[in-house]
Amino acid sequence: MSAIDNLASELAKLPGIGRKTALRLTYHLLKQSPEQSRRLAEALTSLSERVHPCERCFNLTEGELCSICSDPRRDAALICVVEEASDISAIERAGEFRGLYHVLGGRLSPLDGIGPESLHIEDLLRRVAATEIREVILATNPSLAGEATALYVQRQLASRPVTVTRIARGLPVGGDLEYADGVTIAQALAARRTM
Amino acid sequence: MSAIDNLASELAKLPGIGRKTALRLTYHLLKQSPEQSRRLAEALTSLSERVHPCERCFNLTEGELCSICSDPRRDAALICVVEEASDISAIERAGEFRGLYHVLGGRLSPLDGIGPESLHIEDLLRRVAATEIREVILATNPSLAGEATALYVQRQLASRPVTVTRIARGLPVGGDLEYADGVTIAQALAARRTM
Repeated sequence: MSAIDNLASELAKLPGIGRKTALRLTYHLLKQSPEQSRRLAEALTSLSERVHPCERCFNLTEGELCSICSDPRRDAALICVVEEASDISAIERAGEFRGLYHVLGGRLSPLDGIGPESLHIEDLLRRVAATEIREVILATNPSLAGEATALYVQRQLASRPVTVTRIARGLPVGGDLEYADGVTIAQALAARRTM
Repeated sequence: MSAIDNLASELAKLPGIGRKTALRLTYHLLKQSPEQSRRLAEALTSLSERVHPCERCFNLTEGELCSICSDPRRDAALICVVEEASDISAIERAGEFRGLYHVLGGRLSPLDGIGPESLHIEDLLRRVAATEIREVILATNPSLAGEATALYVQRQLASRPVTVTRIARGLPVGGDLEYADGVTIAQALAARRTM
């Protein structure tokens, strides 16, 4: 296979990048200085070499503990449980949450063979037992599998002296009632609050 | 900079890939086996090491001559002039053209400092003088700069015993009159043919 076809087919394996985009990116790189391809290649190599899960929360990090777990200003008694490490960036961008995280590494999906033992649920229970935790916020996705996962984790934590909460579902800010789906509107109505 | 941010910012330099997509791709690669990142890195490295312009037509190749120039079944008396090597793949996909190519390496753009001497126009004139060429098809883009480039090349070739043609402009096949822009419709009308 030619070097061009080879790079294009490797790029086409990435999500959201089709055959045509992959070719366009390859030709773009050929027009740039070889330096840019080299830097990208190095960034890819060092990614898999240097990045691994945080020992405590399974966020991705290059040290033993991730930058959030090792930050003394964060509230260590508050844990936000998410499905993937990428969810942490989304929540951090909002800039509201000052506690720690716990990455499950996916969601329960029995049909795909993903049971509780495939997720970092045991590790969460051990964290809750070992340290002083006030509240666990379940921030799995508001999807069917995400809800099932949240329910499972909540049941596992039910006997522990810890408050378990679930992130609110409702209409997205800036959204439009007209374009919202029925389930979201129903949830938004059910979760209504006194003003 | 962390390895994650580093890869994301390298990916975000690619055209059509914003900051958010770059992060999504990075997290995707972290979930895959390190093998996939390694193969992508190798493909990038070998790209800049192995690929260079064809000595004759400036198409991209890994040998001295590109696969089209070295194919004896192609009609060597017919040259299709394109702006970029990537345009060749587009024309080859159509599967109609059986001649050779000549890549200009861009289009005339005096405001960006791209004059005739920055393009492979001299090389084209030398090819036409040195070999038996019947026809030169100007297949630069149907944009303002592409038209100007075609006009310039046509004038340079005017004194040579060679037919110079321009690819047709008109409505794209499968297109819709309703959504076509006025200039395209005007060109399609002007270039109308007896049925």
